Amino acid sequence: MFESAEIGHQVSKARYKELVPGLREALLEAQATLFTEKKVPVLILISGADGAGKRETISVLYEWMDPRYLSTLAFEAPTDEERERPAMWRYWRALPPKGRIGIFSGSWYSDPIRMRIQGELSERGLDARAAQINRFETMLVNEGAVVLKFWIHLTKEAQRARFEMLQSDPNTAWRVTPWHWERLQTYDKLQEVSSHFLRMTNTATAPWVIVEGADDRYRALKVGQVIQSTLTERLARKDTPPAANPPLPQADVDGLNVLSALDLTQTLPDKAYKAELAQLQGRLSALARDPRLRAHSVVVAFEGADAAGKGGAIRRITAALDARQFQVVPVAAPTEEERAQPHLWRFWRHLPRLNHMTIFDRTWYGRVLVERVEGFCSTVDWQRAYSEINDFEHELVQAGTIVVKFWLQISQEEQLRRFKEREQIAFKRFKITEEDWRNRDKWEAYQHAICDMVERTSTGEVPWTLVESNDKNFARVKILRTLCERMEEALEKAPEATEPALQIPNSSAKARKASKVAKAEKAAKVPKTKSEKPAKVGSKKK
Amino acid sequence: MFESAEIGHQVSKARYKELVPGLREALLEAQATLFTEKKVPVLILISGADGAGKRETISVLYEWMDPRYLSTLAFEAPTDEERERPAMWRYWRALPPKGRIGIFSGSWYSDPIRMRIQGELSERGLDARAAQINRFETMLVNEGAVVLKFWIHLTKEAQRARFEMLQSDPNTAWRVTPWHWERLQTYDKLQEVSSHFLRMTNTATAPWVIVEGADDRYRALKVGQVIQSTLTERLARKDTPPAANPPLPQADVDGLNVLSALDLTQTLPDKAYKAELAQLQGRLSALARDPRLRAHSVVVAFEGADAAGKGGAIRRITAALDARQFQVVPVAAPTEEERAQPHLWRFWRHLPRLNHMTIFDRTWYGRVLVERVEGFCSTVDWQRAYSEINDFEHELVQAGTIVVKFWLQISQEEQLRRFKEREQIAFKRFKITEEDWRNRDKWEAYQHAICDMVERTSTGEVPWTLVESNDKNFARVKILRTLCERMEEALEKAPEATEPALQIPNSSAKARKASKVAKAEKAAKVPKTKSEKPAKVGSKKK
Repeated sequence: MFESAEIGHQVSKARYKELVPGLREALLEAQATLFTEKKVPVLILISGADGAGKRETISVLYEWMDPRYLSTLAFEAPTDEERERPAMWRYWRALPPKGRIGIFSGSWYSDPIRMRIQGELSERGLDARAAQINRFETMLVNEGAVVLKFWIHLTKEAQRARFEMLQSDPNTAWRVTPWHWERLQTYDKLQEVSSHFLRMTNTATAPWVIVEGADDRYRALKVGQVIQSTLTERLARKDTPPAANPPLPQADVDGLNVLSALDLTQTLPDKAYKAELAQLQGRLSALARDPRLRAHSVVVAFEGADAAGKGGAIRRITAALDARQFQVVPVAAPTEEERAQPHLWRFWRHLPRLNHMTIFDRTWYGRVLVERVEGFCSTVDWQRAYSEINDFEHELVQAGTIVVKFWLQISQEEQLRRFKEREQIAFKRFKITEEDWRNRDKWEAYQHAICDMVERTSTGEVPWTLVESNDKNFARVKILRTLCERMEEALEKAPEATEPALQIPNSSAKARKASKVAKAEKAAKVPKTKSEKPAKVGSKKK
Repeated sequence: MFESAEIGHQVSKARYKELVPGLREALLEAQATLFTEKKVPVLILISGADGAGKRETISVLYEWMDPRYLSTLAFEAPTDEERERPAMWRYWRALPPKGRIGIFSGSWYSDPIRMRIQGELSERGLDARAAQINRFETMLVNEGAVVLKFWIHLTKEAQRARFEMLQSDPNTAWRVTPWHWERLQTYDKLQEVSSHFLRMTNTATAPWVIVEGADDRYRALKVGQVIQSTLTERLARKDTPPAANPPLPQADVDGLNVLSALDLTQTLPDKAYKAELAQLQGRLSALARDPRLRAHSVVVAFEGADAAGKGGAIRRITAALDARQFQVVPVAAPTEEERAQPHLWRFWRHLPRLNHMTIFDRTWYGRVLVERVEGFCSTVDWQRAYSEINDFEHELVQAGTIVVKFWLQISQEEQLRRFKEREQIAFKRFKITEEDWRNRDKWEAYQHAICDMVERTSTGEVPWTLVESNDKNFARVKILRTLCERMEEALEKAPEATEPALQIPNSSAKARKASKVAKAEKAAKVPKTKSEKPAKVGSKKK
């Protein structure tokens, strides 16, 4: 991996002076175009051995480029707000918006490498991290980002020489600490771990650039030239969307699917509803105060056709909770700042702290529902969203988040009845828009999209719960019961499953595996046959 | 203050049932209008004695209103990200955007009252806090917000009765802890402190509403009705801007002002510049690594005409620093999310952590410069901005932030020369826009606005430094030297001046006073006569 960076690259002072002005001009030109067009976010990762010249490289970039459109993102010890969220949260919140360049001094590579060297991460754990990182970076590139990963390499001798040089100059001596000399001891281990990890993450979409670090001028020029040529190429490239994948395989043999299999005639009479509701709200209230919840957070996701009863269901949940413990996030069109980021960014920013709950009224599934059906995004975009969403939810679960997602299904007739009813009630009128009426015309296309969504994103970790919602009583009770059950399940799991997951992925991977087994049967939350309906209390068929 | 809330208000069950449906409908209607128009943010503060029913009141509001457009903002122990910023930062980041309702469970009132009761805050300190809060709330109201402050009051007997009632019910017994019973001991002190504090903050723009807490139905109805009538009134009100204040008093007796008094002919030859620059960058670099800086953050503000050299000056500062320690924030038109907030919000969000620096390329002074001159905001808006800005900077200084602000002054001829020069250089071309050329037509109006700005916002704590910028060498050296001096000054102050300021305002008030005395002469950073120019090195007059 590092051979090409151990051959003594050097650039003379004269050659450097000759090359820099043109390079600088091209970089500024690219930066200006970037900023004006505001289409491409740029991530530059500066990684490598200590003392290899990472800091100096970043300084030179600031010298050559316009510092007003650069941000350097440093990741030291996570803050307590970061520690209470999934490990990637701190990187998501730091992503540069379109038009800006973010220089990552430290990144999602630092922790896995450090942990592997210190033996906190198994080799398999490291590989799992690599796979996760590859999917994350692929997502960034698919979202239009340029991801440039530099690894600045030094031989052991060069590292020692550099430390000695820094220490001999009174201006830089402060930078060499006993900690640095120790690095020489772990040099071989770092080379071993990082060369393996780099190889695993050296993808076509986001390849590594290995840079020999010994010569200041060579190192700066190489990094600068790679940035310049990559940006120039990217900005010149026409934004032709990549060819769409083949359509999702479909064959409607018998007209039966997860939606048509639902028995929407199930009801729950008012009296039974009241009793059940009170009991379930008490149960939820107790769960919310359970001390074990301090190692978890809760994310509840609501999807469903217009007028399916999402708002009413949410109200039945919030009524059981202390308002200081939850937030309801109604998802509408993304804001300008959200549009300048990957499509999942606007959900990452609302993730709850430990012991807190976020309820999303409409969710990240918009991409494979409304955006797909209405053509708001390209076919490749919604096609890749399934696995991006699965990754997202997986990261949540890894961090101890309890994720519960509901699809509220109503019949077309029931929806019409509710629309008409709403038009009669003054304070409900604002809920019905032109769009709502229009969406009804695409009922079939939506049903199709929903079935695909359930098939591709109902995972063992985070199953979909389909809710028969023609009867509001029945739906609300099923939702509350499911939420309670899922929370109880998570709280009853051995605490080791979640506590170290936040920072130590290998043990969490273990825990995950264990919990997967335990959940084998429970995973089938999506009723496949009519006989499997879980919430039968008081239900009756017409 | 509390007399009207000790007279045994009560509402019968029948009356409650009769009133609630209409109230609920009106609240939902108001919420719908709020959300559709997205013009008014609503802040509802629920404060009062413990056990007075604050939590229950919030629950009822969630029951009556649409929880999807409510947020409850709870403020427990500040997180480490919050502790490293001014005390009000956590409230600014939690402000509801236009169209939404934020319920504050705990607010900027909680800390001062608690601290006064515990003796950490003197009576004068409390009054200073009240004045600060009044200005903050007035600003919110002027920015279009509705600020509703409820104080739920209980007599001592009623508080005891409530605790006993909660304890006797197994469903609520967990809520009464020894801590609560202790509250009965401090009841009189709380009444004394809060009645004084409420009186001091009972302003015409944001008056207190005292609510008797003993009867659940009365309390809920009173809070609900006040919210409903206030929202309905506010939404019906035409948005006629208030009558403008009289124009700022002006009399140009002798044509001399802080700008015309500047000697723009001062220059610094290249050789002297290089030596000075290297020396000052070394000094700045050492200051940035000074361990004492860990109790401070640094905010550097750059204002100046187009092509005055802000970018070049910023580059000379950043070249001396570790990129991980600073952020450069170029201020352009506010984003959608920023437009939904008070005008200072977009600067609050970029405030640095301790030991970090934020450099603003254009600043919060835009409101009294470009927005004033171009008519982007109303006259009253920019007129009130001076004191809002002074408050903002005062809060920064209180929290130990070193605030340094520069106005870069160039002559009209020099600007024209630079514009023409820029048009020749490919990578600088993007910097010149139509707007830049247009702004030149309003030169006089801008000079006028700058003089007003300096006069009204150059305070002892945060003086303006006017920089003669026709010669870039001279300007850059003056800027670097001033920054170093201001940082040294702050670091040399007794540490008690800053360390407790973050949380304990009275001691910081003391420190502030002390530092004001110490700074008496130094405050005159704005040169009033030609003889006062501080940066004379190498300068020469034509």
